[in-house]
Amino acid sequence: MAAYLQQLAESLDFSLEQRAMGIQAGTPNLELPPVLLGRLGTDSNKKTILIYGHYDVQPAEKSDGWTHEPFEVFQHKDGRLIGRGITDDKGPVIAWFNAIQAYQRSGVELPVNLIFCIEGMEESGSEGLESLIRLEKSRYFKDVDAICISDNYWLGSTQPVLTYGLRGCSYYALKISGPNADLHSGVFGGTCREPTNDLIHLMSKLTNPQGDILIPGLQELVAPLTTEEAKLYDNITFSMQDLYKGLGNSYSARFESEKETLMARWREPALSIHGIEGAFAAPGAKTVIPASVTGKFSIRTVPNMEPAKVDKLVFDYVNKCFQDLHSHNQMTVSLINTGKWWLSSPKDVNFEAAAKATEAVWGKAPDLTREGGSIPVCLIFEQTLGKNVLLLPMGRGDDGAHSVDEKLDVLNYIEGTKTFIAYLHYISNT
Amino acid sequence: MAAYLQQLAESLDFSLEQRAMGIQAGTPNLELPPVLLGRLGTDSNKKTILIYGHYDVQPAEKSDGWTHEPFEVFQHKDGRLIGRGITDDKGPVIAWFNAIQAYQRSGVELPVNLIFCIEGMEESGSEGLESLIRLEKSRYFKDVDAICISDNYWLGSTQPVLTYGLRGCSYYALKISGPNADLHSGVFGGTCREPTNDLIHLMSKLTNPQGDILIPGLQELVAPLTTEEAKLYDNITFSMQDLYKGLGNSYSARFESEKETLMARWREPALSIHGIEGAFAAPGAKTVIPASVTGKFSIRTVPNMEPAKVDKLVFDYVNKCFQDLHSHNQMTVSLINTGKWWLSSPKDVNFEAAAKATEAVWGKAPDLTREGGSIPVCLIFEQTLGKNVLLLPMGRGDDGAHSVDEKLDVLNYIEGTKTFIAYLHYISNT
Repeated sequence: MAAYLQQLAESLDFSLEQRAMGIQAGTPNLELPPVLLGRLGTDSNKKTILIYGHYDVQPAEKSDGWTHEPFEVFQHKDGRLIGRGITDDKGPVIAWFNAIQAYQRSGVELPVNLIFCIEGMEESGSEGLESLIRLEKSRYFKDVDAICISDNYWLGSTQPVLTYGLRGCSYYALKISGPNADLHSGVFGGTCREPTNDLIHLMSKLTNPQGDILIPGLQELVAPLTTEEAKLYDNITFSMQDLYKGLGNSYSARFESEKETLMARWREPALSIHGIEGAFAAPGAKTVIPASVTGKFSIRTVPNMEPAKVDKLVFDYVNKCFQDLHSHNQMTVSLINTGKWWLSSPKDVNFEAAAKATEAVWGKAPDLTREGGSIPVCLIFEQTLGKNVLLLPMGRGDDGAHSVDEKLDVLNYIEGTKTFIAYLHYISNT
Repeated sequence: MAAYLQQLAESLDFSLEQRAMGIQAGTPNLELPPVLLGRLGTDSNKKTILIYGHYDVQPAEKSDGWTHEPFEVFQHKDGRLIGRGITDDKGPVIAWFNAIQAYQRSGVELPVNLIFCIEGMEESGSEGLESLIRLEKSRYFKDVDAICISDNYWLGSTQPVLTYGLRGCSYYALKISGPNADLHSGVFGGTCREPTNDLIHLMSKLTNPQGDILIPGLQELVAPLTTEEAKLYDNITFSMQDLYKGLGNSYSARFESEKETLMARWREPALSIHGIEGAFAAPGAKTVIPASVTGKFSIRTVPNMEPAKVDKLVFDYVNKCFQDLHSHNQMTVSLINTGKWWLSSPKDVNFEAAAKATEAVWGKAPDLTREGGSIPVCLIFEQTLGKNVLLLPMGRGDDGAHSVDEKLDVLNYIEGTKTFIAYLHYISNT
């Protein structure tokens, strides 16, 4: 993908350089995928806009339930482009190249200078990127005026949005080790403390069955809801049908109202248990007592939760719960990766330009939204470069990022590209 | 493996026929592996002994932690033969051919007629075998006088045993379905009822943290402990060190005494949670909310637990616990496979012959033991043919059947083969 993007850039008369990112943490010699850096235009009379995207994707295998090979784009006759990464984030990245192509082919001079920063570790905590941004702050990125990121989604499937807030994510591993090898459950069942049993009991203490987090002190870190903020949720174009479409049903929804749902997604923490590493996970029956199992869970964080404080509350609580189990197996809880929440200012000219662009292309003003997902780089760009960060999404809320049959509608791809073009126009006039 | 065994038989002047077993249940066209049937000798003046074994094995991959390729036999300098299936059950199966070879090469006439029944579905519930045994009861198996099975282990690592009891196993799948596709935990976390969360809470109700089964009525099905039975456990050569060696440590043990441990293994039910299908199980971090997850657990059953009664108690309890969760996701609990417990008579001549053989080869009388594992075919043979079934183990309790680096000691292989030879001699004289 990196090479493909470099070819695309060459065809548009600029170049993307591969920046080596060193060795992945915790591995002896696994090289991190390179970051692609590129610049188009050096006119000091123009604004300089930094475009961020990523070319890495979540894992996918056809056997997960995809209707087609996940790493080949399939265009459905209903207008969906289907493939892993099509909306997260390869589609939007390539659309920026289409936008440049449109300016060039129509003979209109690009109204801004563009800087590209396209990474390959977004789905794994953007390892190494923060160092790069700090390093290039006063070099490659020194004249950046604003940052535009298209790596999120509309809330629903009809109303364009601009996004000014994201939840953070702290991802934990909870490992329990017992016997020194997997055991036959017939021979040993009933005579040993099984690590999987410890783990299930431990993970059952993380939330109640309704999904409320049971970690003491965590909710106290959350910013109180003001009357002003509470009103915001009344004016968002969002219906429970949008959620139901994303879920594929109504009965899996946690709340009945739009307002509760939006608040749960945008301004409340959430804890998800993702699975167990080391236990039997294949179809069929295997009569094994796993020697060592690692539960994976993450907490989506919101203002004003400090990640380090969250870690401490999690570790203290998990350690206490494990003590309560009176197991003599060995337990360790650790942080796999973390990304802080982000809250921007939607009154900046960067957002104003994007709002005008959206209205020009889609014929309606965008909703100003926050999102539940995490893009740690937003915060890093904002804090390091001191410039406004705009999230200008291309895809819809039902695109199924990270899921099977991830899609991007052709309409969103084309109108989204036009919105990118118009955004560059309007931002140049501010 | 089936073809290899057929070659072995040919080299010993008899033949093993492949008996086709039809299509696997629940699959459109997956053929069951064949059962191998063979007969050596038709002398009506001799006893006819049925030897049962299996050539299928548990799954294994080097990446599970094996020190060598699991499907190549590796002879360690400490005397261990290492490889998947070496003790369960390929080693003992091949040893029977060595026993015949020994008679033939030494010019001693085989003192019994032998019938072989070697299947390929033992690790998957012996599908189809019961029908075959019923079909051949008055044909292939009509003159069988006794059955000998070598598909279990010594209790420890020094004392030979004969085994007259086994636990059964009922294996369940607990499936919870919510969203119709995997979801991004950032976008949807906090707004939906997550199937994994439901499953963790549900599975935490199966046992308490100590491992005691919480299913009401289950313990009432267990045969009461008589004074006579209680005494048996005092005379078994077994120390906690044997258990610790199997576990690889002492702290994962559930009980402190030999007697409690033996009773937990032989005469008490046990519930093991084996893992979750459909959740994230790989190394690293994946921020997914699985759409549908299936928890796997099994219950080891003992006299007098009727499998159908156990199923009903399990289903009723799981359904009640799920109702208590007030989740609107969908739950189904089902039985994947079942095998009943088995209790034989160790006072039969079949056991007497094996005891003499053991004493002749090993220089000491065997302990009479029961085991925790399940070999449903024991019960099927006994009930269908109406003859005594003997379990005459070759390997040791620390062989690690179903585990990584499964082993069989060369000493046990050689002395065990001699024991088979002597058993054929003694049984012919009863």
